[in-house]
Amino acid sequence: MIKAGIIGATGYAGAELVRLLMGHKDAEIVWYGSRSYIDEKYASIYRNFFELVDNTCMDDNMEELASRVDVIFTATPQGYLAGLLNEELLNKVKIVDLSADYRIKDVAVYEKWYGIEHKSPQFIKEAVYGLCEVNREQVKHARLVANPGCYTTCSILTAYPLVKEGLIDPDTLIIDAKSGTSGAGRGAKVPNLFCEVNESIKAYGVTTHRHTPEIEEQLSYAAGRPIMVNFTPHLVPMNRGILATEYATLVKKADGSIPTAEEIGNVYDTYYKKEKFVRVLGNGVCPETRWVEGSNYLDIGFQIDARTGRIIMMGALDNLVKGAAGQAVQNMNLMFGLSETEGLELVPVFP
Amino acid sequence: MIKAGIIGATGYAGAELVRLLMGHKDAEIVWYGSRSYIDEKYASIYRNFFELVDNTCMDDNMEELASRVDVIFTATPQGYLAGLLNEELLNKVKIVDLSADYRIKDVAVYEKWYGIEHKSPQFIKEAVYGLCEVNREQVKHARLVANPGCYTTCSILTAYPLVKEGLIDPDTLIIDAKSGTSGAGRGAKVPNLFCEVNESIKAYGVTTHRHTPEIEEQLSYAAGRPIMVNFTPHLVPMNRGILATEYATLVKKADGSIPTAEEIGNVYDTYYKKEKFVRVLGNGVCPETRWVEGSNYLDIGFQIDARTGRIIMMGALDNLVKGAAGQAVQNMNLMFGLSETEGLELVPVFP
Amino acid sequence: MIKAGIIGATGYAGAELVRLLMGHKDAEIVWYGSRSYIDEKYASIYRNFFELVDNTCMDDNMEELASRVDVIFTATPQGYLAGLLNEELLNKVKIVDLSADYRIKDVAVYEKWYGIEHKSPQFIKEAVYGLCEVNREQVKHARLVANPGCYTTCSILTAYPLVKEGLIDPDTLIIDAKSGTSGAGRGAKVPNLFCEVNESIKAYGVTTHRHTPEIEEQLSYAAGRPIMVNFTPHLVPMNRGILATEYATLVKKADGSIPTAEEIGNVYDTYYKKEKFVRVLGNGVCPETRWVEGSNYLDIGFQIDARTGRIIMMGALDNLVKGAAGQAVQNMNLMFGLSETEGLELVPVFP
Amino acid sequence: MIKAGIIGATGYAGAELVRLLMGHKDAEIVWYGSRSYIDEKYASIYRNFFELVDNTCMDDNMEELASRVDVIFTATPQGYLAGLLNEELLNKVKIVDLSADYRIKDVAVYEKWYGIEHKSPQFIKEAVYGLCEVNREQVKHARLVANPGCYTTCSILTAYPLVKEGLIDPDTLIIDAKSGTSGAGRGAKVPNLFCEVNESIKAYGVTTHRHTPEIEEQLSYAAGRPIMVNFTPHLVPMNRGILATEYATLVKKADGSIPTAEEIGNVYDTYYKKEKFVRVLGNGVCPETRWVEGSNYLDIGFQIDARTGRIIMMGALDNLVKGAAGQAVQNMNLMFGLSETEGLELVPVFP
Repeated sequence: MIKAGIIGATGYAGAELVRLLMGHKDAEIVWYGSRSYIDEKYASIYRNFFELVDNTCMDDNMEELASRVDVIFTATPQGYLAGLLNEELLNKVKIVDLSADYRIKDVAVYEKWYGIEHKSPQFIKEAVYGLCEVNREQVKHARLVANPGCYTTCSILTAYPLVKEGLIDPDTLIIDAKSGTSGAGRGAKVPNLFCEVNESIKAYGVTTHRHTPEIEEQLSYAAGRPIMVNFTPHLVPMNRGILATEYATLVKKADGSIPTAEEIGNVYDTYYKKEKFVRVLGNGVCPETRWVEGSNYLDIGFQIDARTGRIIMMGALDNLVKGAAGQAVQNMNLMFGLSETEGLELVPVFP
Repeated sequence: MIKAGIIGATGYAGAELVRLLMGHKDAEIVWYGSRSYIDEKYASIYRNFFELVDNTCMDDNMEELASRVDVIFTATPQGYLAGLLNEELLNKVKIVDLSADYRIKDVAVYEKWYGIEHKSPQFIKEAVYGLCEVNREQVKHARLVANPGCYTTCSILTAYPLVKEGLIDPDTLIIDAKSGTSGAGRGAKVPNLFCEVNESIKAYGVTTHRHTPEIEEQLSYAAGRPIMVNFTPHLVPMNRGILATEYATLVKKADGSIPTAEEIGNVYDTYYKKEKFVRVLGNGVCPETRWVEGSNYLDIGFQIDARTGRIIMMGALDNLVKGAAGQAVQNMNLMFGLSETEGLELVPVFP
Repeated sequence: MIKAGIIGATGYAGAELVRLLMGHKDAEIVWYGSRSYIDEKYASIYRNFFELVDNTCMDDNMEELASRVDVIFTATPQGYLAGLLNEELLNKVKIVDLSADYRIKDVAVYEKWYGIEHKSPQFIKEAVYGLCEVNREQVKHARLVANPGCYTTCSILTAYPLVKEGLIDPDTLIIDAKSGTSGAGRGAKVPNLFCEVNESIKAYGVTTHRHTPEIEEQLSYAAGRPIMVNFTPHLVPMNRGILATEYATLVKKADGSIPTAEEIGNVYDTYYKKEKFVRVLGNGVCPETRWVEGSNYLDIGFQIDARTGRIIMMGALDNLVKGAAGQAVQNMNLMFGLSETEGLELVPVFP
Repeated sequence: MIKAGIIGATGYAGAELVRLLMGHKDAEIVWYGSRSYIDEKYASIYRNFFELVDNTCMDDNMEELASRVDVIFTATPQGYLAGLLNEELLNKVKIVDLSADYRIKDVAVYEKWYGIEHKSPQFIKEAVYGLCEVNREQVKHARLVANPGCYTTCSILTAYPLVKEGLIDPDTLIIDAKSGTSGAGRGAKVPNLFCEVNESIKAYGVTTHRHTPEIEEQLSYAAGRPIMVNFTPHLVPMNRGILATEYATLVKKADGSIPTAEEIGNVYDTYYKKEKFVRVLGNGVCPETRWVEGSNYLDIGFQIDARTGRIIMMGALDNLVKGAAGQAVQNMNLMFGLSETEGLELVPVFP
């Protein structure tokens, strides 16, 4: 039985980790870290766990934690793990970091977009970007996994095969993403109050959202050269779910024609047919976040516009599962040589 | 492996049965009955099951179905099963009926509140009212289980111990219940459109809702005499969840005092401490539907008002799980001698 | 032109006052008081007023304010106005207080339920309880009006005629109320975050909510003797609206029969037919909050249950309008001898 | 007093017309046409109008209607008005058509996108496209106004000045739009049920939505040449509101630089500073639908991305007001020589 500790267990992503790990045959949580609620019963903060979790919230003593668990999940603010990580820790435990600290390989890019100094850049190279469908083999041997962001998981995987295969011009890629409000976290802020979010939609962080460089880095690897995209997140009055609507110009074939829907579908199938957690919907079927809620699935659909020569790619996932805790467990499974799907065979909950 | 058939698989309760049975180790669905969608892929109606359910919707041929399965779930309109049931069927399969056809023992009461003639009253006596926590032993030996209504499960179990123990005066019982909109079903009706339900709350079926006689019958058994209650349902702009707020006058003790919170708590514990799916919250803690969403739990809380001599009892459950499909699976488990909790150890999903 | 000042202009009730007064022919706002946002553009806090309100938020200097305006609206926390009020102020301006400071005539009751000492009890007697439909004449001559609470306006007016005419037994009165989330205010608190409120319903403040003594006091006047009620508020995932579902036993007539629906309807008509802002719906029609949203209407319906001898009364209003800012403007109109409906002829907004 | 008739008065746009015209000093509704509810009280369908509208729903006899009113609003399905219109009618009354019948000048384009034959193409040329801020002078003299679609009003006005002034390359224009559910109408369809829409977001009509050619036609006029765009609508779980997020590549200046935010802001100001109903927000401020709800405002914001050379333009309006009924009244005001803002000075309702 793998012993797991969570730092940041009382955030939404942390609580989702608890939910998922409770259904995991080979893992158990032994440390519910929460700076804000030390010594309070975890189930008094999240009453869905009443009679299911008897533990009390602990401080975030990484040293002690490392000696008691096999894996640590850090669902913490940016900079937290970078400020604590050292070789001794990594010799003792594996770490899945749900923050952005080790996602971006170029520390200058990290420091520019996040506006903070990186305290332990020496581990960036070692860290594996935990997008399982792309970096599966590396994850298996990692001590430190940088769990991808919610928007980024959705944005990257939706476009990845077409970028990689050169079917779209990555310089034309525009990602218009929409997220449920749990993505904003559980902090007590006026803009996240019910009455402020309900009955409204807005874009935010336009041209400046921190998931942008993460998307660009990964898609640059796919493209084989540096690319830049426009990424625009929106806040939607719902709890969970991310939908990314992505626009790109199709690359013409030698005869001047654009790829057919069948060709595009085949490429998606080549990459994802064998992937349990990526479901490629039929041609012209639009993914909807309701069909993946509570599950680890990413649903992908697309539509070609012959008039404009563009393709519209669409991806939908649950930001707290495939976009955070689910992918973290998927990474843990890979790191420990378990079945990749253990604890993650959750049927989406509808309605 | 128990083979199960569902009639009405494309309603919300039917679809929830599918979700739950997919996670059940000892049961598999072999018949997805849906009059409205015959020959259509089930996963094209409920796309959460894409790549998870490959079956096609079937007609509702009970005869053939009975010869192919061990248990039939009927998630059908009132009168449907009563119109088809016969001894031959019951000799072949066990039936869990999610409609009201066999819930009420007095056929005249059924016919009055439902406004239809009962076509097979001869089976009413045999049918077991499938409120597992109350009728567990009878359910174990039943061929035909009448699965309780969503409002009724919540309303009855919340008041049951106090009525049974004579701690409250049942003639003063007032049940003010609030339900999410999935309780209204998937029929295309203007009052259930998003814009009609959203941003509003209303009472409906005031003094006439059909769950009233069902609540009264069961609580009359508990009281040992016929009782009548006021039951008022309300429609809440949310998908799932029922909250019942119940008011009753506490019966004074010989010394003129009313029961204490501790005494009330002890009674609840006596009845429910050993019950996996009923969670009695601490004194003064109010249940909230969000803490049971997606799970088979009923959360109960209470508050005594020494000023007025009344108690306010509150119960919260997920109408599609403990209020429908979950309880149906719990009944199936009992009928087939399986562990009662198999397939039902679902952690509530929040947020 | 009446000059108005608002203390607490950046709360939800304050902002609604701004919206209503902008449509008022005979009043203009000259002071937007907001301790939290001093010197910020009011329209930068509430961007619905962009290009409509050019003012900047001011401190809450009551002295100076009193010398510059004809009326002050205090949409402030409990105790604020009581801590400042003096004869000099009242000689200069009329005050409509949206807090509870002067609503309850028995200062001991106020101090017990609110848990604070009342700093200026000498003005309690003078203050008029601003329930216009009940105390219209007194309001006209008041210097200080205690604007009723949102729950209380709805709860009292819905039951008032039947209590006053002795048609129901007030000792049996149970009020189960449901409110939209704007009633919880704009403070940044975790329980009011979108993800905490959305997709859930709960009771809160059971037996202890501060609107209880206010309801009891007013209905005691109607009954002609002290009465106590059970009042249970619930939080509903919607922005605006209160629905009160009220239960009471009908008083039998000399012949042992209970009042008929026609008799009840006549009593309601006697009290409210001439009232612009109270709409008595037809027999058996349930009020819904969506039909009053954005308006100053209170909709009332009822249903008699001959089986139990009880009546279910239902009232629906917009908590920010008739439950707060609208009633405050209605009071202002009366105090200044204007048409009572000026600025308040708002058609409910649906959907 | 202008006498107005509404055909389709029981749809959401029709009901909003009723709400707006009730606040209009110079117009009154004398005909509430509704095929589905003939002879029913209008206020029994839309109970927000209880005690405010006493009228009964009428059939849609255009002939008789034309002889009794000065203006007809047709809030009807596509093809309805085209099937009835004739010279005699137009000689009697002015018509504001909220359907698409006369919006598109090229009848072949209309017939292709709408899939129906146009029954009276002879009036297409005469019809004025009622985008008031663009075609104000023509509207003033029109007998027949084609009221623009909700998505199109938002999409066009947001991009119009930059297309017209040649600041963006219209061939790169991508419009990602999000709408509340009232845009889907009041028809009883499963996809519009509360539980189907709530807690989800989806794209629909990708590459095929009928507002596409309307947007293209108007922006082609602005560009001075035919252009094509990608327009993707999304359904958002809220009642009202449209947000259009629009992406385009900025045209470089002679020196190779892109326009500055100040330059862009100046262009918007040139076009809209004098427009009552278009509010250009400050640089970098994102419009949100909540700030325009219930009002006739369109809020516009933008953000330049120097990295990619693109601009993100954003527009937000209330689809039932500026996107339908409000603009219809604005057109009526122009057609009858009234103040353009009469009946439309509605302060947005928040929360």
